[in-house]
Amino acid sequence: MTNPRTRTITWEDPRALAKSAAGLSGMEYLQKIIAGELPPPPIGVLMNFRIAELSEGHAVFVVEPAEYHYNPIGVVHGGVAATLLDSAMGCAIHSTLPAGASYTTLEIKVNYIRAMSSETGLVRCEAKVIHVGGRTATAEGKIVDERGKLYAHATTTCIIFRPT
Amino acid sequence: MTNPRTRTITWEDPRALAKSAAGLSGMEYLQKIIAGELPPPPIGVLMNFRIAELSEGHAVFVVEPAEYHYNPIGVVHGGVAATLLDSAMGCAIHSTLPAGASYTTLEIKVNYIRAMSSETGLVRCEAKVIHVGGRTATAEGKIVDERGKLYAHATTTCIIFRPT
Amino acid sequence: MTNPRTRTITWEDPRALAKSAAGLSGMEYLQKIIAGELPPPPIGVLMNFRIAELSEGHAVFVVEPAEYHYNPIGVVHGGVAATLLDSAMGCAIHSTLPAGASYTTLEIKVNYIRAMSSETGLVRCEAKVIHVGGRTATAEGKIVDERGKLYAHATTTCIIFRPT
Amino acid sequence: MTNPRTRTITWEDPRALAKSAAGLSGMEYLQKIIAGELPPPPIGVLMNFRIAELSEGHAVFVVEPAEYHYNPIGVVHGGVAATLLDSAMGCAIHSTLPAGASYTTLEIKVNYIRAMSSETGLVRCEAKVIHVGGRTATAEGKIVDERGKLYAHATTTCIIFRPT
Repeated sequence: MTNPRTRTITWEDPRALAKSAAGLSGMEYLQKIIAGELPPPPIGVLMNFRIAELSEGHAVFVVEPAEYHYNPIGVVHGGVAATLLDSAMGCAIHSTLPAGASYTTLEIKVNYIRAMSSETGLVRCEAKVIHVGGRTATAEGKIVDERGKLYAHATTTCIIFRPT
Repeated sequence: MTNPRTRTITWEDPRALAKSAAGLSGMEYLQKIIAGELPPPPIGVLMNFRIAELSEGHAVFVVEPAEYHYNPIGVVHGGVAATLLDSAMGCAIHSTLPAGASYTTLEIKVNYIRAMSSETGLVRCEAKVIHVGGRTATAEGKIVDERGKLYAHATTTCIIFRPT
Repeated sequence: MTNPRTRTITWEDPRALAKSAAGLSGMEYLQKIIAGELPPPPIGVLMNFRIAELSEGHAVFVVEPAEYHYNPIGVVHGGVAATLLDSAMGCAIHSTLPAGASYTTLEIKVNYIRAMSSETGLVRCEAKVIHVGGRTATAEGKIVDERGKLYAHATTTCIIFRPT
Repeated sequence: MTNPRTRTITWEDPRALAKSAAGLSGMEYLQKIIAGELPPPPIGVLMNFRIAELSEGHAVFVVEPAEYHYNPIGVVHGGVAATLLDSAMGCAIHSTLPAGASYTTLEIKVNYIRAMSSETGLVRCEAKVIHVGGRTATAEGKIVDERGKLYAHATTTCIIFRPT
C-alpha cells in the first residue's frame, strides 16, 4: 500500500502574534486576525480552520474535513472536533474580555453525535458564552453541516484573569 | 511581521488503512501500525504523534510540542492535548477488542493543568481502560513531561459494537 | 451547638412503581406520575423535587432549596443540583421513548455558576434533548431562579435499549 | 398500590456549622465532624452518607444504598452517586487547604458503570486530589462495593480562594 499524499503548510511566529494582543481587547485582537492584519495562529493553519463570524460572546469557525484529519478507523479524528470546539468556545469567551484581561481553559467536554468524513463538506462550529463572571466563564458550542445536521456538541470552563 | 516557517507532511490513504483492520483484533491492528507494517493514520502525521507503548488496555503516545501546535494566545492549543488524549484513550480501549468488534467515542472530558510550549520537550500521554463492558467502555489518560510534571488529564466514554 | 430540626418523609415501594411502567411509553408513564395516578419516586420525595412541565423531549422540575440540602460549607450541596439536572435531563430523554424501550445514564457533566441557599426561593430545572438516536441520546439542562438567574448547567449522555 | 414507608431525619443549623470552620484548616474542620465534635452537614443526614477515612488529599465516604434513594426506573438515582462523589472529591481537596482558604466546585463529571440497588450493600466512595495549585484544584473519585466492583467514577474542578 503506497499512494502518498502531500501537504505543505506555512505559518508565522506565534510568540510575535501573541505579543500583538497587548493593549487590545479580545474583540479587537480577534478582529485583526479575521481582517488579515495579524496572521492566523499556527493551529488554524495546521487544521485549516477559519473564523467565519465573531460578535461579543459568539464565534463561528468553519472547516472542510479532509483526509489529513483522519484517524486509524477510517473517519475524521475526534480531536479535530475537540480542537474546533475549543477554538470557537475560547474565542467566544475571549471576545468578551477587555484589554489587559486574559483567560485560560480549565476543561472541555465534547459529545460526539456522528463522525465527520471528507464527504461531509464544510462544517460550522457555532459557540456562545453561557456565563461570564469575574473569575470564570463557561461556554457551549456545536458542529453542524450545511444542512444543519449535528456532529458534536461541547461545553467549556475557563478561568479569567482581570487587571486589578 | 513576516518570518514564515514551513512544514510538509505526507500520508497514505486512510480508507485503505482502515480496511486493513478487517479480521484483526484491535491489538493486532495497532501493533502492525507500531511495527511500520501499516502506515500511521493521517492525524498522527499531522500532529506528529507516535505510539510509544501498547499492551492490553494500556497505551502511551508521545509528541514533542512544537510551534505549529500554537494557539493565538502564545501556547500550544488545548486541542492538541485533547487529540493526544483521545488517541491514547481510544487505543487503550481498542487494544481490548477482538476481531470483528469496533468502537466509537461518545464523549471526552479534558482537564488542563498547565500549558505546553515548544520548550516543554517530549511529553507522554498515558492512557488505560477503567471499565470495558459488553456495550460501553471508559478510560482515563494523562499527559506528563519527562520529569513527571502533569499537563492535562482526561476521561472518555466509548460505545462498543460486538459481533452478534 | 444544638438546635435540631426534624423532617419526616413517606414513600411507596419503588419496585412496584417501576413495574407500572411496563407497556407504557415514557411519556405515558411520566404523565401518570404527574397526575398522581402513580406515586412519586422516592428520590423526589427525599429531595422534595416536583415535575412541573413535560412535553416530548422537554422536562421542567422545580424545587425550593432548603436547609436539609446544605453541605458543610454553608450552602446547598452541589449534589442537589446534579440530582435535579440528572432527573430533568433523564425525563426529557425518557419522554421520547416508545413502550418497550428503556434507557440508562452513561454520564453527566455539571457546571456550577453560583451557589443556591434557602434564601434562593423556588428554582426551575429546564431540560431538553439535544440528540436522540437509535442507541444513544444526549440532553442539556439548566437551573434558574424566578428572575432567570443561572445557578448551574449540565449535559448528559444516555444509552437507549430499544425492542428488537 | 399503597404500602408506605417512613423515615425521619434530624439535623443541626448548617450556618452555625459553617461558621465553626473559621480559623481551622480544612483538615481540622473535617476531623471535628468525623470525631462528632461538630454535627454532620444536613446533606449527609439526608443521604445517610458518612466520612469513613480522611488524610491529606484523600477522602473515603460510605453509604448503604436504600429504597429512599430510588428513581422512577427502579434503581438508585444517579444523583446519589453524583452527590457522594462530589462530597468525597470536595473533601479530598478541602483537606489540603490551610486556615483562611476556601473552595467551591466549578464542575463535576460522573461516569455511571452499573446501577446501585438496596441489595448492593455498603459502598465506598474513594476520592483523591490530582492537582492542587494556587487558584484551582482537580480530583477524581470512584464508587466500589465491598468486593471491589465499580459502580461509578468521576472527576471535578474546583476554584480555590487563598488569603492574600
